[in-house]
Amino acid sequence: MSSVSLSLEQAHSLAMKCLQANGCDTANARAAADRMIQAEGDLCPSHGLFRLPWYTAAVKSGRANGKAKPRVEQLAPAVIRVDGDNGFAPLGQEVAHQPLVDCAHKNGIAALAFVNMFHIAAMWPEVERLAMEGLCAFAFTASYPYVAPAGGIKPVYGTNPMGFAWPRKNAPTLVFDQASAAMARGELQIAARDGHSVPETAGIGPDGEPTTDPNVVLQGAQLGFGGYKGASLAMMVELLAGAMIGEFLSIESAEDDGGKGGPPKGGELIIALDPAKFGDPEGFLAHGEKLFEAILQQEGTRLPGARRFINRQKTPETGIEIPQSLHQTILALMN
Amino acid sequence: MSSVSLSLEQAHSLAMKCLQANGCDTANARAAADRMIQAEGDLCPSHGLFRLPWYTAAVKSGRANGKAKPRVEQLAPAVIRVDGDNGFAPLGQEVAHQPLVDCAHKNGIAALAFVNMFHIAAMWPEVERLAMEGLCAFAFTASYPYVAPAGGIKPVYGTNPMGFAWPRKNAPTLVFDQASAAMARGELQIAARDGHSVPETAGIGPDGEPTTDPNVVLQGAQLGFGGYKGASLAMMVELLAGAMIGEFLSIESAEDDGGKGGPPKGGELIIALDPAKFGDPEGFLAHGEKLFEAILQQEGTRLPGARRFINRQKTPETGIEIPQSLHQTILALMN
Repeated sequence: MSSVSLSLEQAHSLAMKCLQANGCDTANARAAADRMIQAEGDLCPSHGLFRLPWYTAAVKSGRANGKAKPRVEQLAPAVIRVDGDNGFAPLGQEVAHQPLVDCAHKNGIAALAFVNMFHIAAMWPEVERLAMEGLCAFAFTASYPYVAPAGGIKPVYGTNPMGFAWPRKNAPTLVFDQASAAMARGELQIAARDGHSVPETAGIGPDGEPTTDPNVVLQGAQLGFGGYKGASLAMMVELLAGAMIGEFLSIESAEDDGGKGGPPKGGELIIALDPAKFGDPEGFLAHGEKLFEAILQQEGTRLPGARRFINRQKTPETGIEIPQSLHQTILALMN
Repeated sequence: MSSVSLSLEQAHSLAMKCLQANGCDTANARAAADRMIQAEGDLCPSHGLFRLPWYTAAVKSGRANGKAKPRVEQLAPAVIRVDGDNGFAPLGQEVAHQPLVDCAHKNGIAALAFVNMFHIAAMWPEVERLAMEGLCAFAFTASYPYVAPAGGIKPVYGTNPMGFAWPRKNAPTLVFDQASAAMARGELQIAARDGHSVPETAGIGPDGEPTTDPNVVLQGAQLGFGGYKGASLAMMVELLAGAMIGEFLSIESAEDDGGKGGPPKGGELIIALDPAKFGDPEGFLAHGEKLFEAILQQEGTRLPGARRFINRQKTPETGIEIPQSLHQTILALMN
């Protein structure tokens, strides 16, 4: 597969121009480009420029608001809502960050409900940023029905990731952001594009039979990781990021899209805890490190997110590579 | 395997008498017996009388306080701590329930840190009870090092369950309580006791090699469900129910026990959210039901916890059966 080399600046500029050429204002384009290029810089291409055609299609079709002005509202002493004004999640997350940090520090725990937005980015950036403020954070979001419930064969749940971050003192933040599905949707799509097979635990065909062909899984249903337990988590995410906050379930988001194939409109729930308010303000950081030491003293282990931080150190120098086909698609979107 | 039939009342009385004969006062014995017999009534024997020898050994050895008087403290506007006074978790949970409910209703979200207690019960009773007050709830607890970190072969994490509950209007609460490990410890122990094999995903031997022999897994390490993703959840639980609240990590709890084999001393974190404070107070219950309908219209599906509720309807009539060997062990503990 031929590829194109880009510096992070070039990649960012490409994303910005493409988004602006398709109806995004500067603030919305910059926030979305920041997110995509952060993922590229972490060498997580499934959340990088790969998503750009989706973003632009959604704005061009009028489904997403490229000039969104997110609004923050306090629903309860420890609950904040951000209305995304029908735009993309990254700008809403920028706007919501400081109010959530302040609310969590004040109350010890706080929640943020994002509604009325399109969420197609990874969630590790928002939880990581909260952890850099000394907070411990969860994030949940639903998407489109891709994953079968336990015992069933038709998709009901999104791949429904849960992000988690924990603050560290003199080390990169502990972060993971993992789909409730055995595979992230982007990984599955990339496997299909590149002709790779997938593990049999990843999904089933339309007949409910196991398969290792990603194209058959795309026609059938993905499965929760570890089987029914991952499916339980996917269900939990639908309730938290859908039913609880008055936003779309994955099945509703698909209905709303009406088969146009744009990014899923929906919600996100973030929970932020201030560990300094839980009884051991002086000790909790060192205590976390004790756990990490016990893990890392075993050969073959690494902390979740560690690879991303290593990549992040390198890519400002090395740049990134994207498939030539993707590069051409993006260029075509700018004409 | 011979078994002994007991009514729930007989089982409860047996547990009460055994706990009282071994140094528990009435309040502590009743709370622990309630929990064990609730599990038996739900036909979840791994959290039932099977745990009684552990409880009694811990009190007899002086490790656990059978006369604990748990104390509630407010750490921040939305954070409560309960000091379990070195006793068993169930009584602390009784004491903490109403303050947590009130705090969650007031702030929209609230957290409860349990410290200084022995936690060997399932967590579904506490989250289920919160959901019956209209709340959505999470619970997390660590235990002893049983589970290897991703890439490693030696145990660091407990089986580290996460409980979750969601309120329903005219139906049993949606509840799950699942180990981050592929198998709960109790299930593994029962498989070993009964000579059953376990799935290869359940764990590894001391050499790191896969095995289906539960006795070899007990010598080696359990694995996270779905592999590294379950291990990530187990790590998260250590941070939440250990490092954050100033309580033992699983490795510390084992050190503290010093090989005596008593129940793990440690903490528990509960997060309770009031869905009525998240922007859709009139709609969230019906919205959850829409999800459940989409799940249940597929053949072969059921909601997590549903089997427990069905069992719970029956066992007051049918009673329960426990292995004769366990019954004899319990009787011997009362002499």
